[in-house]
Amino acid sequence: MESKAKVLTADVPALRAPAPRSGTVKKTSSHGPDQPYEHHAHGPLEGFVPLYRRCDLSATCEITVYDQEYFQGKRMEFTSCCQNIMECGMENIRSLKVECGSWVGFEHSSFCGQQFVLEKGDYPRFEAYSGSNSLPHREDDLLQAHLLCCSHKESRMTIYEKENMVGRQFELCNDYPSLQAMGWMNNEVGSMHVQCGAFVCYQYPGYRGHQYIMECECHGGEYKCYRQFGSHAQTPQIQSIRRIQH
Amino acid sequence: MESKAKVLTADVPALRAPAPRSGTVKKTSSHGPDQPYEHHAHGPLEGFVPLYRRCDLSATCEITVYDQEYFQGKRMEFTSCCQNIMECGMENIRSLKVECGSWVGFEHSSFCGQQFVLEKGDYPRFEAYSGSNSLPHREDDLLQAHLLCCSHKESRMTIYEKENMVGRQFELCNDYPSLQAMGWMNNEVGSMHVQCGAFVCYQYPGYRGHQYIMECECHGGEYKCYRQFGSHAQTPQIQSIRRIQH
Repeated sequence: MESKAKVLTADVPALRAPAPRSGTVKKTSSHGPDQPYEHHAHGPLEGFVPLYRRCDLSATCEITVYDQEYFQGKRMEFTSCCQNIMECGMENIRSLKVECGSWVGFEHSSFCGQQFVLEKGDYPRFEAYSGSNSLPHREDDLLQAHLLCCSHKESRMTIYEKENMVGRQFELCNDYPSLQAMGWMNNEVGSMHVQCGAFVCYQYPGYRGHQYIMECECHGGEYKCYRQFGSHAQTPQIQSIRRIQH
Repeated sequence: MESKAKVLTADVPALRAPAPRSGTVKKTSSHGPDQPYEHHAHGPLEGFVPLYRRCDLSATCEITVYDQEYFQGKRMEFTSCCQNIMECGMENIRSLKVECGSWVGFEHSSFCGQQFVLEKGDYPRFEAYSGSNSLPHREDDLLQAHLLCCSHKESRMTIYEKENMVGRQFELCNDYPSLQAMGWMNNEVGSMHVQCGAFVCYQYPGYRGHQYIMECECHGGEYKCYRQFGSHAQTPQIQSIRRIQH
C-alpha cells in the first residue's frame, strides 16, 4: 500500500474557497513532474495499535492538510493512510479539508492519543476537529496527526454492561445521541463487539467529549474492556454513539 | 407556566452514581415541607430572544443541576424552563443530569450566548456539555446557564444556499454528520426554514464547533440570515446538522 502525497507551494488560498472538485480527482491519478515530493507510507501496521484499519483502495478517499490555520502554508494531499505526518516533511497539521471519504486523525504517532473522526468538509482550526472551543493547551497538540481512511456502508454492533461481553446487552445499528434515552442503564459501557462497519463512541451525550473509533476490522471487532477503546481511554464512560458512514 | 424547583442539601454523591429513577419521578410530583425552596420562573418570553420555545407541559422533562463538578454541592431540580439560574438561588451550574426529555442550555441570561443541546445523560463537567476538552477560559462561563425543555417527535427543515430562502435548497429530515458529503456545495448555509420539530446545526463536520438550535416554534421556523441562527453566530458556516429527538 502506498500513499500518494505531494507538497504544493503555499498559495494562501482565500478563506472558505470552494474545493476544486474536478482538479482534485485529477491530482490523485496524475504524478507528473509538477509533484516535487512523493511519500511512500509504511505498510500495514496490524497488531501494535488498537485502532488500525486497512484502507479500502477501491474507495475514493482524499484529504488535504495544511501546516497553517485556515488552509494556508504548506499543503499536502493524501489518498491513503499516513502513519506520521512528520515523515512526510510536514511539521504539523493546523487545518485540513476532507475532499472525499471519511478519515480518522490521531493525536500522536503510531495511531495513539486522541482520535478524531473526519468527515467530508472543512476544518479550519484545531477546534474544528477536536471539538474543543479553545486553542490547544500545548503547542505540540497538532504535531502528531495521523490519518486513516475508512469506507463502510452499514454498521452494526452490540454493547454490553460489563467487561468481556457480559451482562445486559443492546444491539445498535443507528445513531444514538443519548444511550440512556434509549434505555441503557447508566453512563458506562463495559465492552462491545462490532459485527460490521464502524462507530464513534463518545464520552458524553450529544456526541461530545473523548471519541473512540470502533471498527469490525480491529481485532475481530471485539473491545473487551475500556482500555481497548483507545490508548487515551481512562474510564468506561460512553453516553452517545453514532455510525461512521461513507 | 411555573417552574418546579427545589434546593436539596449537598449530599456529595459518588461519582457516576446511577440516577435514582423512581425517586426522581416522585420528587417532581411531591412538594411537601421537605422542599425549602420553590421557584416560580418568569412566564413565556416570546419575541425578545431568538431561540425561545414554550415547554410542552404534557411531556415529561426533568433536569437536575449542581453548583459543583461531578454532581456535588447544591442541587436543584427542574421540570420546566428556568430563565435565570441565579434567580433560583444558585450561583452557577458546574454539572448536571438530564433525567428525562431533551433540554437546551444557554451561556448567558435572556437565552443568549452559546447554546448547548442537553440530551438524557450525565454531564459531570463544563466540557461535557460544551464540547470543549479544556476548562472554561473565564471563571464566569457557567454563571449564566439557562434551560429550555423541548419535545419533538419528528423534524423536517429546508436549507438554502443564500439569505432570505434564495438559491439552491435541500430538504433535511435525518442526521447529517457532513452536509458536503450529501452533496451540499460548500461549508455555509445562507438561510433555513424549519417546517416541524427542531435541529441542531454545527459549525464543523461531525457535530463539532458552535451549536445553533433551530426550531419550528421560533419566529415561524424561519432563519433568514446567519445572524438569526443565534446571538453568538458570527458566520454562516454550518457543516453538520442533526435532529433533536425526544
